[in-house]
Amino acid sequence: MSQVLPSTIPAALFHERADAIALTARELAQHGWTPATSSNFSMRVDADHAAITISGRDKGKLGRNDIMLVNMDGKAVGTDSRPSAETELHTQVYRRWPEVNAVLHTHSRTQSVASRLFAKHGVIRLEGWELQKAIHGHTTHESVLDIPVFPNTQHMPELVAQVDAWLDAGKPLHAYLINGHGIYTWGRDMAEAQRHLEALEFLLGCELDLRRLNA
Amino acid sequence: MSQVLPSTIPAALFHERADAIALTARELAQHGWTPATSSNFSMRVDADHAAITISGRDKGKLGRNDIMLVNMDGKAVGTDSRPSAETELHTQVYRRWPEVNAVLHTHSRTQSVASRLFAKHGVIRLEGWELQKAIHGHTTHESVLDIPVFPNTQHMPELVAQVDAWLDAGKPLHAYLINGHGIYTWGRDMAEAQRHLEALEFLLGCELDLRRLNA
Amino acid sequence: MSQVLPSTIPAALFHERADAIALTARELAQHGWTPATSSNFSMRVDADHAAITISGRDKGKLGRNDIMLVNMDGKAVGTDSRPSAETELHTQVYRRWPEVNAVLHTHSRTQSVASRLFAKHGVIRLEGWELQKAIHGHTTHESVLDIPVFPNTQHMPELVAQVDAWLDAGKPLHAYLINGHGIYTWGRDMAEAQRHLEALEFLLGCELDLRRLNA
Amino acid sequence: MSQVLPSTIPAALFHERADAIALTARELAQHGWTPATSSNFSMRVDADHAAITISGRDKGKLGRNDIMLVNMDGKAVGTDSRPSAETELHTQVYRRWPEVNAVLHTHSRTQSVASRLFAKHGVIRLEGWELQKAIHGHTTHESVLDIPVFPNTQHMPELVAQVDAWLDAGKPLHAYLINGHGIYTWGRDMAEAQRHLEALEFLLGCELDLRRLNA
Repeated sequence: MSQVLPSTIPAALFHERADAIALTARELAQHGWTPATSSNFSMRVDADHAAITISGRDKGKLGRNDIMLVNMDGKAVGTDSRPSAETELHTQVYRRWPEVNAVLHTHSRTQSVASRLFAKHGVIRLEGWELQKAIHGHTTHESVLDIPVFPNTQHMPELVAQVDAWLDAGKPLHAYLINGHGIYTWGRDMAEAQRHLEALEFLLGCELDLRRLNA
Repeated sequence: MSQVLPSTIPAALFHERADAIALTARELAQHGWTPATSSNFSMRVDADHAAITISGRDKGKLGRNDIMLVNMDGKAVGTDSRPSAETELHTQVYRRWPEVNAVLHTHSRTQSVASRLFAKHGVIRLEGWELQKAIHGHTTHESVLDIPVFPNTQHMPELVAQVDAWLDAGKPLHAYLINGHGIYTWGRDMAEAQRHLEALEFLLGCELDLRRLNA
Repeated sequence: MSQVLPSTIPAALFHERADAIALTARELAQHGWTPATSSNFSMRVDADHAAITISGRDKGKLGRNDIMLVNMDGKAVGTDSRPSAETELHTQVYRRWPEVNAVLHTHSRTQSVASRLFAKHGVIRLEGWELQKAIHGHTTHESVLDIPVFPNTQHMPELVAQVDAWLDAGKPLHAYLINGHGIYTWGRDMAEAQRHLEALEFLLGCELDLRRLNA
Repeated sequence: MSQVLPSTIPAALFHERADAIALTARELAQHGWTPATSSNFSMRVDADHAAITISGRDKGKLGRNDIMLVNMDGKAVGTDSRPSAETELHTQVYRRWPEVNAVLHTHSRTQSVASRLFAKHGVIRLEGWELQKAIHGHTTHESVLDIPVFPNTQHMPELVAQVDAWLDAGKPLHAYLINGHGIYTWGRDMAEAQRHLEALEFLLGCELDLRRLNA
């Protein structure tokens, strides 16, 4: 392990976060949502730092040593490892919501296909599904859940700006898709983030099925 | 375990029921039918009580301590835990059929999509499938199996009343769907309830496939 | 074990067959091809007897004690257990082809749906697929493989007569479907029967996919 | 083990390759991409030899003894075992690209169906997918990835000539499909070959989904 921690972060804390990320990654990889070393996962460590997956690792075999520390600008701290190209999207979430402690980005076939299908509308509207109640703050299937689909770009600041623009317009945001890519979602703890991800994967799959059935 | 049992219920009996529920829950979770902590499962303990899953637990990791006791009005007995919001639908089944000892509610993608597709008809008619014989009392594929689809509501007494109305009209009932939600089915023992659930999941999937094929 | 063997059948021989059947059953159940205790499997024991699954058992948990002996008329030998309702379809295969030593009947969603879709044609024609070479005697994708679809009936002699009629017309037969039900296939040993089953499940799935794609 | 190695190839080297191939084969079989003993896998051993799967083995149960040595003409070396019928397609890749050390051929349902659907165009064009970046040399979703679909034939030299013609026309090649059959792809090491395969399986599945959705 070439990770050197700042004196303010106990090793036990970083290891707990790294182990939680690695466990979740292996579970999500088993679902087939992290093909070809795609996807990235993080947890907040303190107000100024997050633990995040090192770029390019096989998520099905992830361990503690595949996790590194970054600051809230998405820059590596105490290591020569390279964090995921999309690290800035994770740290943006931590900066925006102090109560969020886990961010998940996966790349399932359902997510990729749904993003392409709805890209022209810029949003997928979910309504009438009981499982919307799995999203924090939703207590009935009669609520409406809008998941934006942002255009893809290899230039991260553009993506960050798109997310900022949505939020600055005062619209609620629990997750977003990037066109031809995957989903980002988060939670106050890892269990909530994972529940959000499972629910959204399920609901996107249902919406695609209804369209396959011309319903 | 904060569950205190009435003196009329031996601990061994409750534990047997709790373990059976937890085992079934883990098996159904492996099929992907319990996304995002959805679904609930119960077994009758005696004429006046049932064991049921505590609300909000991950069904893939369920153990004995995730099961609690309720009375036949669906109220918690001997515990501060909160039973599933849909507990009244379980106890309705136990009150209606003294021979029923297990009730299963899952939330698979096939179930959710089928419920949306057939909601406008209020029923899914299954006929011509050999697997209808897996349903208690059906001995040939030439029988007809009607699965009602009730409108969803967060107000349980409305759902209970819909089920009562169907039964009071003298129609046979082996299972029902709730729109945008999942399925309820039951059996004289856990094995029969699980066989009913597997058969119905399979048959709903077949019906969706036939429609995808415009057949 | 209530199975009493004829003096001409060594226990070790019967156990070897029973274990091979149980192992295959558990593997096929893992694929999801044996829902709700459906499906049945057998192996020839000698010229006059076969080992076959006892009716109604969960194929995912099959063991040696779930297998029983029948004669070539499909009648139980040395046991009070009840063989599968479709036992006569197995023994018909053993009577027709002395070189066949294993018969598999599964009930996958693909098989059930394909049978319904092609029932009106009475046959599914497979051509142009490399995997046709997995079927004994086929050495090129340019061959043609016809899989008949027979109408379903709960009266076994009718099904036996349909199979006989096909064979007596001199047509090749490697497998057949029953409408709304599943597939029967066989092989000189269990490995060949299983290879045939895997190939046919795959090819039926491909044919359904092409139709879903309007190709 | 009947494999006799040339004096220039240390046993440890051959065993390392054989073990790596067998491990990958078992992983790919678990995905269901190697039905009915189909598919074949190889690794370069030195400039003149490759280790490749013996014909007809169950890829889900592959071990070191299911791997044999061939020369770069695809002929068996030091063994009476028969290599896969398609061995010449593997050795062609090693001859063409000295930097390639692993070749994978699988036979998934998605691959077979996609090959049939796109055969008339002779090519599948992938664009706009983030996962194109998993292919060596691709750094943006804005690139274009053309996967040719060659007609199937049981005569290997014809297939070899089709691949040569594509390459001699100066077109980039990372993988190809054979109609009604499966995919070939490769990499500088086994991890890269496997990443290419996972990405292409995913992207072909996405393209089929978009067509099912008429998108």
